[in-house]
Order: sequence, then structure tokens, then C-alpha cells
Amino acid sequence: MPGTLSDAALARLFREARTHNAIGGEADDDTLRTLYDLLKFGPTEANACPARFVFVRSPEAKAKLAPAMSEGNREKTLAAPVSVIIGYDMAFYDKLPVLFPHTDARSWFAGSDEARLDRVGLRGSSMQAAYLILAARALGLDCGPMTGFDNAMVDAAFFGGTAVRSNIIVNIGHGDPAQLFPRSPRLSFDEAARIE
Amino acid sequence: MPGTLSDAALARLFREARTHNAIGGEADDDTLRTLYDLLKFGPTEANACPARFVFVRSPEAKAKLAPAMSEGNREKTLAAPVSVIIGYDMAFYDKLPVLFPHTDARSWFAGSDEARLDRVGLRGSSMQAAYLILAARALGLDCGPMTGFDNAMVDAAFFGGTAVRSNIIVNIGHGDPAQLFPRSPRLSFDEAARIE
Repeated sequence: MPGTLSDAALARLFREARTHNAIGGEADDDTLRTLYDLLKFGPTEANACPARFVFVRSPEAKAKLAPAMSEGNREKTLAAPVSVIIGYDMAFYDKLPVLFPHTDARSWFAGSDEARLDRVGLRGSSMQAAYLILAARALGLDCGPMTGFDNAMVDAAFFGGTAVRSNIIVNIGHGDPAQLFPRSPRLSFDEAARIE
Repeated sequence: MPGTLSDAALARLFREARTHNAIGGEADDDTLRTLYDLLKFGPTEANACPARFVFVRSPEAKAKLAPAMSEGNREKTLAAPVSVIIGYDMAFYDKLPVLFPHTDARSWFAGSDEARLDRVGLRGSSMQAAYLILAARALGLDCGPMTGFDNAMVDAAFFGGTAVRSNIIVNIGHGDPAQLFPRSPRLSFDEAARIE
């Protein structure tokens, strides 16, 4: 189809992309800002963009994060050049007058019960985590996404005094293909999908 | 950086990609299977791949979906060549012996309370919805993702007798750029992120 990306690009993004455990290299400020300036365009419900990002890079910040990681995720997180904490702001609606300016979208969410706000935040920030993973790959970086950490510890260490809740942490840098496990299976089309 | 996609590819995926309201054209079986065979590789927690997809394409299936759409989403959904319902299987753990074969990952989730399963399913299927959106764009297609529909009605019409819950619906096809609204703002790096 017109507009289809090259096979090399499809391989980089999907077909040959892997979750990396051993991630090294570096990621400077410019790279992280370029990454954000791609992922920010991904769509979210009411353009609410609920995700908030902490790029954990300094030894001090890594030391603050390490105790919250599950044992299996701790060493590789300390070794990665950057670990991105992706959380979501439960008060995301306060940005809607800017993000959705053509109507009063704030009133669609402000005053909603916690369960609904948590659901919108979790959904949107999960989509934005996926945009981050694919944007990083599009920039030639490799990723190692994780949910194996203590959310309450991360929230206390990085989001204290805010309404932000952690969701996913992604190590980014340059993966070592020699340390990859074989790729795990995926569901076939017919197991996961149908056409009606 | 080595491995970075071309500017044209970054524009197609992120910088110039838009949520489309007016979507026409066609999407044959081969296109939908190619789309699934890209998005399936996106990472999810424990490789659980909780998303389930119904590609709603026939007039009969569209007629079944239409009453569940919010008024503002109904006409454009009927007009789009395909509307993909992305749900998540609350019993996703039953696939883990296949998807995560090197240990008993099923036991990490089976018997968990509904709230935890719902959270894992919502998170993973939201990431997979994002993979679908970017994979569609990578294939030259345009998308219109929506959460404005009655989940209970969609579940009854399409997921009756299963443990699948609807999450997001995405119209796919070829968008009409003449009918786009101006792009809404995004948060600046400093509003949404920080480097520690």
C-alpha cells in the first residue's frame, strides 16, 4: 500500500524488535527530548495525555529506584543508561483546558470517582508507554519494559506530594543481542482475532 | 543514531500522523492479517498478550455495533471500512503455558482477584491498541481510536459467553485530510517529564 514503511523499518519496530535484558550505552538529554517529541503525538482519550515521565539516569536517582525494583529487575535496571518511570496523573483533567481547548472537556472528568480516573489514567499512560517503546525503537534505541516493581515505593520516591501513580518502567539504551533469550510465542490470528 | 528511521517514516508514525474522523477506502483480509502479524510482536506483561480483536467489517456486524457507539462516534464508525474492537480476556492466564513456556507463569495470575486481572488486562490491551494504531500507520493506513461507546452493549453483542471485556475501538482505513480539525496541543517536555 502507498505509505507503507520499508521492510527494514517494520523489522526495527516490530518483526525483529525484542525486549532486552542487557542494555548499555548512553542517552543524552537531546535524545530523551527527541524521544518525548515523537511519543507525545500518540493519541489518547480526549487528548488527555495523562502520562508523566521520569527519566532516571544519574547514579543518585538510580539508587533511589533500585530498592523498589523486584529482585529479577534490579541489576539490569541499574546497568541501563536510562530507566523511564511512566506514571499517570490522577488530576490529568486540569490540563484539558490547554489540551482540548475547543470545549469544556475538564468537566467530563473533574469530580469523577477515583476508579474512573484511575481507569482513564491507566489506559492512556499504557498507550503512551507503548508509544515510547516504539518511538525509542524508531530512534535506534532498544527497550526493556517492566511491571515488576513496588508501585508504592516508586510513587513515594519519585511522585511524592503529587497525584501521579506509577504504571510501567522501561529501560532504554542499546541492547546486547548476544544476551537475548529466544523469542516467546505469540497467539495466531485465529486465537486472538476474528473478522465479522 | 544508527538504526534511526527516515524522517518520512517518523512523520508517518508520529509527527504528521493524525486521528481521523472521516475514514473511507477498504481493508481486505490480507491487510488485517498483516496488521495483526506486526502488532502481535509488541511487548506485554509476562508476554500475556491479553488483547482480543474483532474486525467489524460486514454491514451486519456494523449494524450490531452501531447502537453501542456514542452519538458523535456512530456515523463515522458506520462509514469506516473496518472498526476494530479491542478487548481483553480476563482469563488471559490460560494462554501462558504457550506464551511463557519456560516457567509456570499461569500460577502468577490464576486465582487473582478480579481487580488485579482487570488491571493487567486493561494495561496490556491498551498497549496492544497503541501497537495496532502504529502498525496500521506503518502499513499506510489511518486510524480513528475511540472510547466513546457503551462497553456493556459491545460486550453483549460481540463477547457474549466469554470473559472478554471491551476497551478501545479503532476505525481504520484511509482518512480524508481535508476533514481534519487542527491538531490539538501537546504538553511540553517540562510539563510532562523530567530527567533525574
